[in-house]
Amino acid sequence: MSEIKKPVKESIVHKSEILLPNDTNPLNNLMGGKLMHWMDIIAAISAQKFCNQHVVTASVDNISFQNPIPLGHVVTLTAKVTRAFTTSMEIYIVVTAEDIPNNTKYVSNSAFFTFVAVDKNNKPMPVPEAIPETEEEIKLYEGALRRRQLRLVLAGRMRPEDATELKSIFF
Amino acid sequence: MSEIKKPVKESIVHKSEILLPNDTNPLNNLMGGKLMHWMDIIAAISAQKFCNQHVVTASVDNISFQNPIPLGHVVTLTAKVTRAFTTSMEIYIVVTAEDIPNNTKYVSNSAFFTFVAVDKNNKPMPVPEAIPETEEEIKLYEGALRRRQLRLVLAGRMRPEDATELKSIFF
Amino acid sequence: MSEIKKPVKESIVHKSEILLPNDTNPLNNLMGGKLMHWMDIIAAISAQKFCNQHVVTASVDNISFQNPIPLGHVVTLTAKVTRAFTTSMEIYIVVTAEDIPNNTKYVSNSAFFTFVAVDKNNKPMPVPEAIPETEEEIKLYEGALRRRQLRLVLAGRMRPEDATELKSIFF
Amino acid sequence: MSEIKKPVKESIVHKSEILLPNDTNPLNNLMGGKLMHWMDIIAAISAQKFCNQHVVTASVDNISFQNPIPLGHVVTLTAKVTRAFTTSMEIYIVVTAEDIPNNTKYVSNSAFFTFVAVDKNNKPMPVPEAIPETEEEIKLYEGALRRRQLRLVLAGRMRPEDATELKSIFF
Amino acid sequence: MSEIKKPVKESIVHKSEILLPNDTNPLNNLMGGKLMHWMDIIAAISAQKFCNQHVVTASVDNISFQNPIPLGHVVTLTAKVTRAFTTSMEIYIVVTAEDIPNNTKYVSNSAFFTFVAVDKNNKPMPVPEAIPETEEEIKLYEGALRRRQLRLVLAGRMRPEDATELKSIFF
Amino acid sequence: MSEIKKPVKESIVHKSEILLPNDTNPLNNLMGGKLMHWMDIIAAISAQKFCNQHVVTASVDNISFQNPIPLGHVVTLTAKVTRAFTTSMEIYIVVTAEDIPNNTKYVSNSAFFTFVAVDKNNKPMPVPEAIPETEEEIKLYEGALRRRQLRLVLAGRMRPEDATELKSIFF
Repeated sequence: MSEIKKPVKESIVHKSEILLPNDTNPLNNLMGGKLMHWMDIIAAISAQKFCNQHVVTASVDNISFQNPIPLGHVVTLTAKVTRAFTTSMEIYIVVTAEDIPNNTKYVSNSAFFTFVAVDKNNKPMPVPEAIPETEEEIKLYEGALRRRQLRLVLAGRMRPEDATELKSIFF
Repeated sequence: MSEIKKPVKESIVHKSEILLPNDTNPLNNLMGGKLMHWMDIIAAISAQKFCNQHVVTASVDNISFQNPIPLGHVVTLTAKVTRAFTTSMEIYIVVTAEDIPNNTKYVSNSAFFTFVAVDKNNKPMPVPEAIPETEEEIKLYEGALRRRQLRLVLAGRMRPEDATELKSIFF
Repeated sequence: MSEIKKPVKESIVHKSEILLPNDTNPLNNLMGGKLMHWMDIIAAISAQKFCNQHVVTASVDNISFQNPIPLGHVVTLTAKVTRAFTTSMEIYIVVTAEDIPNNTKYVSNSAFFTFVAVDKNNKPMPVPEAIPETEEEIKLYEGALRRRQLRLVLAGRMRPEDATELKSIFF
Repeated sequence: MSEIKKPVKESIVHKSEILLPNDTNPLNNLMGGKLMHWMDIIAAISAQKFCNQHVVTASVDNISFQNPIPLGHVVTLTAKVTRAFTTSMEIYIVVTAEDIPNNTKYVSNSAFFTFVAVDKNNKPMPVPEAIPETEEEIKLYEGALRRRQLRLVLAGRMRPEDATELKSIFF
Repeated sequence: MSEIKKPVKESIVHKSEILLPNDTNPLNNLMGGKLMHWMDIIAAISAQKFCNQHVVTASVDNISFQNPIPLGHVVTLTAKVTRAFTTSMEIYIVVTAEDIPNNTKYVSNSAFFTFVAVDKNNKPMPVPEAIPETEEEIKLYEGALRRRQLRLVLAGRMRPEDATELKSIFF
Repeated sequence: MSEIKKPVKESIVHKSEILLPNDTNPLNNLMGGKLMHWMDIIAAISAQKFCNQHVVTASVDNISFQNPIPLGHVVTLTAKVTRAFTTSMEIYIVVTAEDIPNNTKYVSNSAFFTFVAVDKNNKPMPVPEAIPETEEEIKLYEGALRRRQLRLVLAGRMRPEDATELKSIFF
């Protein structure tokens, strides 16, 4: 990790889109794959802004899709860094959808993506330390270690018995 | 105009994009037409949010393109209503571009789009009155009448001698 | 300006498109932003053909959108140079739309774009002089100076009192 | 066939495109499949204009691709009806490519597509008779019968021995 | 669950793509978001084939991205059902990438998506029972329960102490 | 031709797609041009896999389109080499379409594309010899010579009287 410290809020980015026909499935609702594509773009911009480096997607945590989002609704994605590790950053993305002519707004879902900072040869590079400031940012910061252990266990790169933070989920 | 009043800030929306190969011309810079396409989408969302109706693009004011924006840079568009008329809204869009790995940020350009609120049969509908609050919002609000007269004169729908606000530009 | 002279007609280009679902808004009409994207492409080809150089979009004049163009209609754009200046060219684009199975054709709108000829390093390059031949070409040629002054005044690069051609619009 | 007669020239349509990165293969030349996609769109517009009906692609004749067309070159497609049969029309498409900054223009290739006029339920509809006027149009008109027999033989819908026009190719 | 039983192999589908410029990031490697978009499409087809219903994406499990996949390489996705529950199906997607001119093939990554079968009003519908046949299919079938519990715990819809299958991962 | 021999089956590749709105014409059926674009991509991958070289499309044989394929149906393309010549390969592509929720599967059409293997400078390169194994592969292999003569005659590169294989079609 570099010695720079950076407040989380400097990584906040937004992206609003109107759902067009090609974004939808034959039932006229947003396809999950298209939403993940947009999540990846906005999360990459957030990670880039935080570390001022090129970044690559390292992993995506479990995402669940609850509400179908129909054609014509407006989707807004907001992304920010939750915590930085040596060369990687966890990004939190919240998706809200709106039926604007009917004045209805609903949270659609949220996701955690992990990005690695790289130079032009794809070699990992150190990133600044993330400083959470609001209550929500602190809560996200604190949970990041637990989510990271889950990722490592699921990827077979950490033995479950060493995932001390993670175990607390289950007991 | 409807009797509802709404602060300008409720119409603010953002859209960030990474410049991908197909957004660029053979010199690897963003094509003006692609940027205008993005401007139209984010301005339409801003207008929709302000009036809670469907909206259609009525006109675009003179736009000038100063800095070439290269492949890989991040473009951020911010749109908001400046002033509402009976059934139409003027939207102001500011575009900033960033070379994030080199920590360089520059204003690219800005534009004024006008949208009309419509029902499902494309019939114009009244919109709320826009209330500017910050100094910049008030300045944009005050200039809106002048820009509107220029639009009407250029479209041949107002006689130049009636464009009293507009004349003040030239004398 | 280079010493070459070129008739306007050598810059004429056309582009026809069928409106597909993704070109339309939730009311199934062509989005203004998509049309401006097509205008930029065809105008760039026209400017390129005229000067035999790479070109970049410098500015777009006020455009107004009158008729909604529905899904499935055919849109035809025709572009040509109206007048050339030292390193720039004004392009005039006319858009017609057709509901072919119902045999209905209507002019949708028109626009003026300005392009600058550049070399591979984005340095401006001289362009040929444009020779108008038909009555319409001559009229467009003569109006170009006035439109150019309006652009310069709006961009803050010419004092209104120096815009002698432009003033004639208002008196 | 309907009793209407229509000169071939009323079906002429054009489409110019700048080759963008996504239109090209890893060697930076236009992909054959992308060109065929554009051919189909412009040919469909030509067929629509001729018969004032909806149309569907019925067949494509042998196409050969000779010159690679590099990124940034401008491609122009011109389509027109050659001859109409009861409910179908043969369309001839010529593709030229230009390296405009180097002032080089070359014919890339040509193709024959066949379209059927249909109503909204995909039921074939009669089309006008095509009247060729120029020498080239007459030559294309005369060859249409021979190409049609080749199509029918290749599709297994005509016995070779009945393809009297076609035989003349081989003897 | 319906009373129909169906072998897993009837759900196998493939999708090969050449990486084009717009699929890649500024370092010329496939963007994670684009790959997830393709995964969602092929997984939806696999789920559809298995249950002969419309399907919607319900969730995506943790995915990790190991190897950068460069422009021009060929990506092949293979999807199949691992196990069906009352109205949902878990789909396993394997992604391989190839540098064909250099004859190099590598496994890129794999993912588990969950889809729900729905009727035209988005109401969940029963699906057939999945019958695994090969050794790999049986192993995937057996792990599905454990992955499902992890999903439910992460979504807050199962108490960790009830996730009996899942616990075995950690002890 | 190189001295390597390769069984046809090593060139088999598949591609499944769900028909999205932008793939369809105003009657909501797949456009022929879009299908040809997909055919070209999957045929290019098949040819690449067979020869382990870059490839370019050389020609496309007559294709006929019989059944309209509606929005939402799944299209599956399968491509394989039929026979290799000195530096070229003929590829056979079969397209099936399915209305999965209604359990209806139908063959849509088939096509023959020819690709040439090239190095990075577009210079033709020798390809392996193709070894057909199944009955269908042998039949396709045997017909390849006849189709090749037809292509050469149609392209004006073989005199009809020398097309000995081809003549057998007509007598």
